[in-house]
Formats: sequence, structure tokens, C-alpha cells
Amino acid sequence: MSSKEWIPFVAANLSVNSAGILELAGCDLQKIANKYGTPVYIYDEDALRRQCQRYAKAGQNYRPGVEAFYAAKAFLPLAMAELVNEEGLGIDVMSGGELYTALKAGVSPKRIYFNGNNKSPQELREAIKAGLGCIIVDNFFELELVGDLAQQAGITQPIQLRINPGVEAHTHEYIQTGQLDSKFGFPLLGEVAHRAAQVAISHPNLNLLGFHCHIGSQIFALDSYAAAVKTMLEFATEVKRQTGYTWEELNLGGGLGIRYTEEDTPKTVEELVANIISFVSTGCAEYNLPLPKILLEPGRSIVGETGLTLYTIGSIKTIPGIRTYVAVDGGMPDNPRVALYQAKYSAVIVNKADQKPNTLVSVAGKCCESGDMLIWDILLATPESGDLLALFSTGAYTYSMASNYNRLPKPPVVFCSNGTDRLVVRRETYQDLLACELSLKPGRLA
Amino acid sequence: MSSKEWIPFVAANLSVNSAGILELAGCDLQKIANKYGTPVYIYDEDALRRQCQRYAKAGQNYRPGVEAFYAAKAFLPLAMAELVNEEGLGIDVMSGGELYTALKAGVSPKRIYFNGNNKSPQELREAIKAGLGCIIVDNFFELELVGDLAQQAGITQPIQLRINPGVEAHTHEYIQTGQLDSKFGFPLLGEVAHRAAQVAISHPNLNLLGFHCHIGSQIFALDSYAAAVKTMLEFATEVKRQTGYTWEELNLGGGLGIRYTEEDTPKTVEELVANIISFVSTGCAEYNLPLPKILLEPGRSIVGETGLTLYTIGSIKTIPGIRTYVAVDGGMPDNPRVALYQAKYSAVIVNKADQKPNTLVSVAGKCCESGDMLIWDILLATPESGDLLALFSTGAYTYSMASNYNRLPKPPVVFCSNGTDRLVVRRETYQDLLACELSLKPGRLA
Repeated sequence: MSSKEWIPFVAANLSVNSAGILELAGCDLQKIANKYGTPVYIYDEDALRRQCQRYAKAGQNYRPGVEAFYAAKAFLPLAMAELVNEEGLGIDVMSGGELYTALKAGVSPKRIYFNGNNKSPQELREAIKAGLGCIIVDNFFELELVGDLAQQAGITQPIQLRINPGVEAHTHEYIQTGQLDSKFGFPLLGEVAHRAAQVAISHPNLNLLGFHCHIGSQIFALDSYAAAVKTMLEFATEVKRQTGYTWEELNLGGGLGIRYTEEDTPKTVEELVANIISFVSTGCAEYNLPLPKILLEPGRSIVGETGLTLYTIGSIKTIPGIRTYVAVDGGMPDNPRVALYQAKYSAVIVNKADQKPNTLVSVAGKCCESGDMLIWDILLATPESGDLLALFSTGAYTYSMASNYNRLPKPPVVFCSNGTDRLVVRRETYQDLLACELSLKPGRLA
Repeated sequence: MSSKEWIPFVAANLSVNSAGILELAGCDLQKIANKYGTPVYIYDEDALRRQCQRYAKAGQNYRPGVEAFYAAKAFLPLAMAELVNEEGLGIDVMSGGELYTALKAGVSPKRIYFNGNNKSPQELREAIKAGLGCIIVDNFFELELVGDLAQQAGITQPIQLRINPGVEAHTHEYIQTGQLDSKFGFPLLGEVAHRAAQVAISHPNLNLLGFHCHIGSQIFALDSYAAAVKTMLEFATEVKRQTGYTWEELNLGGGLGIRYTEEDTPKTVEELVANIISFVSTGCAEYNLPLPKILLEPGRSIVGETGLTLYTIGSIKTIPGIRTYVAVDGGMPDNPRVALYQAKYSAVIVNKADQKPNTLVSVAGKCCESGDMLIWDILLATPESGDLLALFSTGAYTYSMASNYNRLPKPPVVFCSNGTDRLVVRRETYQDLLACELSLKPGRLA
């Protein structure tokens, strides 16, 4: 076993075998690449389950409980919905497509919560018909619509109200969601949110479970949550004063950061949950409010570090005195996070995992676009064409955000566990790309 | 007919009917939305054909000719490949998927050129097997590979060499491709590109047609092309001096800007072509080089202004004193350009096209992400839930870059012509989203 000092510490189980080849969950990644081709998304299934279990267990000493709803938008092929369900977490969906997938996976509708700033009337009908455990209502248009649809269906629909807490988490502005100028939630300005609570409480077909807020993603500073909890306590106190209503649930969303590179220093799931329990317990005593069930919506912190992407290195181009570009057989279509958020990743050459990274290069994708870069400036062990590159911590927001830009088929997804691999998403084919496309010529299908 | 002073001038044929409803190519867009649902991409097919014809005709007085190869990456469902082929343009592909689509559409392989910074060995084999008119070779790895594959196939493969001209076009850095620090092409530094030319010229299975460069996209200043032409002339002169070789073709790529908002002032196709012919003719006389056939790779300037996206407005949220968010039923998954490039768009409410835009709002998408915005600050005619919004100039880099983020199905594409509409891409279904996904449970398919 060689030193793995330059392999990032992530939730996934990485090791280097005697041939100097990187392994994930006991699977030789060169063999995996030979079997499935590249690019390919690989997950450590055991680590995935472990991350779910950590959220399931972390708050077990708190009454009335901490419950985690996996944030589907991070990564939700059918198999992932099944895995999350097996591990006992609920699912937080944002669309009819995610809802369809969760139901297809056998998730109980009661364990599905529905988020989003603009659910369509059709999606809301699907949710109410399925008997969802909760619709997290974002705005007055939706509040009225959900009330009407529940009335038409002759049911009482459990809801939460999404509140915009006006808290600015320290993260990329695209994934910072709690600031006052946000498309999400009822703002805590001019009694807007209070009015929403009054409408929800008095509607005969709505059952207000409590309040929701989400301050952003990839958060390292837990005091952002303290500020959000305080704001929600103040809001709940005012609603109680105005209406007598007290909450059953407080949903604090997701947002726990993960480790993409050595520079990232995330808090653990256990630290997050312990801190939140402390903020809520202390706060409820101070504000004289009953302890709510605490709900969390982790996505990235469950899947992010458990996945990696394998690419084959093709062209290598040195621009004298400027930079060496190492191009791989994927990029922006399978991972748009670098172009979108200037995300940073770490990587290792799979078949040289026992060699010291000594060559400064930049890793480019194969798309016809300068923005299609995966890593600017990284040390790799003498990259050569044909080498296999593993990009770490690509478990979240890659498959789920993938496009077919440049008509590149989406890569497959493979789960690895204890030395065995299984395909959970097959690679798209050229034929798949044309599946919905019609010819201009009458009677001719693609 | 009402005033259409607030409808942007674009290549598409827009008008307002007596009911105050916006029409495209004589089609009532409210009826189109009712028929196909929203979101939906709509194209003016006549305008599409006209844009192709302008490129086909613009250089007809120049010998040895100007030839346009449509840049597939902008928008290439099967029907578009057929249309481009019918109008006599070639196709510039960047991947095996685009090549497959072009061939499926009946495009002659000789009229297909293959671009890209990291074509895979498999894609190159497909290209050589199909008998492509030209492979635009980007780097030494590929040069050797194409030579070997051509030799194995017993053919002589026509190629161009992509040169990095070191010219910085004035545009967004992601779509600026000609700067020296770029993943594209052979750099003009330290004789790198000259060496590539020597290899290409001396290889018995390669036929060097000439040189290629592409300085970027959405360019308004034609003098960027003058600088690129001058650089290519100097390079061709030096190659001629070293080897005696003279070019048959000079490929200047694409890049002509279009009108997204009133602030954009693009040059016309005819101005672009006339200027380039002038730069090349004058330069060749000065440098004593033969006139090359001029090749262009227009994408955005053919399709961009001919398309629009229709959305239905859902929730409308006013944050007192800050901003009004108008949310639509699509966003970042069907149009990632705002999140990626801070792109700006103009829009009109279809069913209020005869009313003066008087309300300052921002248009948000429905994705669970703050970056999912379509327009920051635009005047619309009193937007209400249920109104239909047309976002203009969305013909390029929308369908082609679309993802299923949040598991939103991709919208359909409809071509309109002279008052009639036809579906060329059907809407994805929830079932389509799971087409490649496998269950964890043995024997169970999605």
C-alpha cells in the first residue's frame, strides 16, 4: 500500500492497490473504466448509506426528533431514491419529475415534502393526488392554489410556509438563498409572512405544520444557522402572539458544506445537528415556545464526497511559457459547476496514484467553449494521453445538472460496494439523443 | 394592428394581432402555447431559412468562394440539420453525437467538418469511416491519431489545422476563444504551429486544406476579424517560406453577434462577409498569397434571433421596497445562459403585446437555486399569474445546452411558418427522465 498523502480526505473509501491504482470501495477504478467506459460517475454506495445513517442518527436524543429529508436536486436517479428510502430518510422534491421518481422508487408519499418557488398547478395537483406529507408553500399565489386544490379534493393538506429569513450565508451568491432580495419564500417585511401565516391557519383545508427556511448551500460557518434560528423564533413568537398558533415543525433546510479541495474545512453532520439542536432548544426556552420537530434537507453533504468522475486524458497541449492544458473526454456537460460557480476540484491520475504529483497543469473539457474547464492549476503525476483521471467530490450537482451540450451523451452511473460494482444509470446512446426529435419529412421519424 | 415599439427588432417575423396578442410568423402565440403547453421553444422557420440563405449568398462574387458551415453546437435537433442541409450550408460538428445527427439528416459527409479540442479516438474513427469532408485538427495528439487512422483505413483524410491566433475578441471570457492562453488550437509560439504544418504536409495520408481560427462568439467589432486574418496571413506566409505549401482554404470560424436587447448593435451577415472578403483579398495581395476559399462557421447568427421561448407566469412576489419577482415555469434548465454568462434578454407579455410595458420586475425561473433568473429588471405590461411571457432571441444555446436540473423535462420545439406550426421536438415526459435508470432491486426496471 502506497502513501495516499495526495488523495483528498473525503467520505468515500479511497485506497491505492499494490499496482499503484486507485480503488474506491475496494473496486479497481481502472477496471471499472475498462468495463463501463469514460466519462463515468462512480459512487461509494457504502459511504452513501453511511452519510444517510449519520443524518438519521444524529438527533436521536432530541425530542420531538430530528428528521432529514434528502434534497433530491443534488442527485436523484431511481436507485438513489431507493437507497435513501431504504436508509429511512424522507425526500425533499422540487418538481413533478422528482416526485414521480420518488414515488416510482416506492417512497411513501407521507415521507415526501415538496419545495420550490413556482410549483405549477399541474405539479400541485399531482402532489395532492399522491397524498404528500407536506407542501412547503412559497408564496401567496401558491397558498391560495393549494388551499383551493385541497378543498376540491376534499382533504386537509399539511403545509409549511417557507420564510425568507433575510440571513446572508457566506457562500457563492447563486447558492445563497436566505438574503432578503431572494425569489424564495415569504419576506419578513411589512407583515407579509405574518399575513401568510394567518391565511394558512384559518384555511379549513390547510394544516400548518410549521415554518421553513433555507439560507444557502456549501456553508462552513454554523453561526449562519444560529442567526436563521433566531429569526424564525422571533417570527414564530409574533405569529403566536397574533393568532395563538404554535409550531409542530421547524424546517431549517440544507446547506452543510463539503470538502472539494484541501482548502475546504467543513463541519461534520454531527456538529451541524448538535449545534442546531442547541440553538433551537436554548431559543425555545428563551422565547417560551414549544420544542418543534427539527427538519433538515441535506443533499450535497450526503452525496457530494461519496462520488467521483472518471475521465480519460486525450490531448495534452503546452503553450510555451503559459500553461499546459490536459484535455479529458467530458467536461461542462457532465459537470457544469466550474463554469457556473467557479467551483474548485481536486483530482488524481488513477493509474499513477502511487506517484507524487509533480506536474502543474490545467484540466480542460472537450466542449467547444473556453468556459469548459474542470480545474485551473493542479499538480498531477506526469499526465499522459490515455491516463485515467479521477475528479473527486463530484457526487452532487453533476448527473442532476448534466446537459447534452455539443450532443455529448450523458455518462453512466455506477455504485461500488465492498469490491463489487453495479450499473444504476446506463450511458446514453446517440439514438437516445434523438428520442424526442422528429424529421421535417412527413412520416419520417428520427 | 397596434404599435410594436417595445417589441425588439430581431430576425424573426413578429407582429401583434387585433386581439393584442403577439404573433410569430403569422402564428398566434397564445394558441401555440395552448396547443403545446409551456415552456416551449418556438422558431420562425422562414427566418431560419432566410438566415441560412444570407450566408449562402453573401460571398457569391468572391472567387474561389465563401462557404458557410452551420455550427451545430448552437442548435441541432434532427429537423434543424435537415433544414440547414436543404438550404445548402455545410455543418460544423463538435462530437460524435452531432455527426450522427447530421448523417441521420441526410447531410453528405463531404459537407461535414469536424471541430473540437479533444475528439476521442472513437469519434475520429466514426468520422473517417463516414468519409468526412474535413477534420479540423486541434493538437499534436490528434494530428498523429488522424494520420494513423487514415493510414489504417487506406485513405487520404482532408484536414485543416486549428491555429490559436492570440487575438482577444471583445466578448465574455467564456466565449472568447482566440486568446493565447486557450485550450483551442496550435499556439503561434515557439514554432509549435509551424511544426504542425510541416507534419501535416509531409504525411502521406493527410491532405492539408488550410488553416482554421475562431476568435470567439457574440462579436460586434469586425476589426477583431481583421487582426485574425492578418495573423493567419503571416502564419501562411511563413509556412510557405518553410515548405512551399500554400493554402486552399482559410476557415475563420464564427462569432458574429446578434441582438438580445436594444443595447446590442450587431453587424449584418452581409457586412461581416464583405469585410472578411476585403481583409482577405487585400491581405493576400500584400503577402503575395493565393486567394483561399473562405469558410465561416456561423451558429448564433443563424438561429439566435429566429427563436423565442414561451413561459407561463406563475407566482408573483413583491418584496416591499426591494423587488418584484415574476416566476415562470422554466428557467436555468431550458436556458442556462443567464447563470453562465450573465446574458441579458428582452421579453414581452404575449397576451398584452399591445399594452405599454409599465411595471418594473425581475423574471425568475422555477429552479431551486438563486442563480436561476432569466431577467434582472425589465418593464412588462402589468404581469399577472397565468400571463404568457415571450423571451426573445433564445434560438441559440438553449435547447442545445438544456439540462434536466430539478428533473424538469426538456421543452418541445415548434417551427412556425406562414401561419402554420409543426412540432420538431416533442416534450420529454417523466418516463423519459428515467429511460436510462435502473432499479437497485434485481429484475426491476424503471
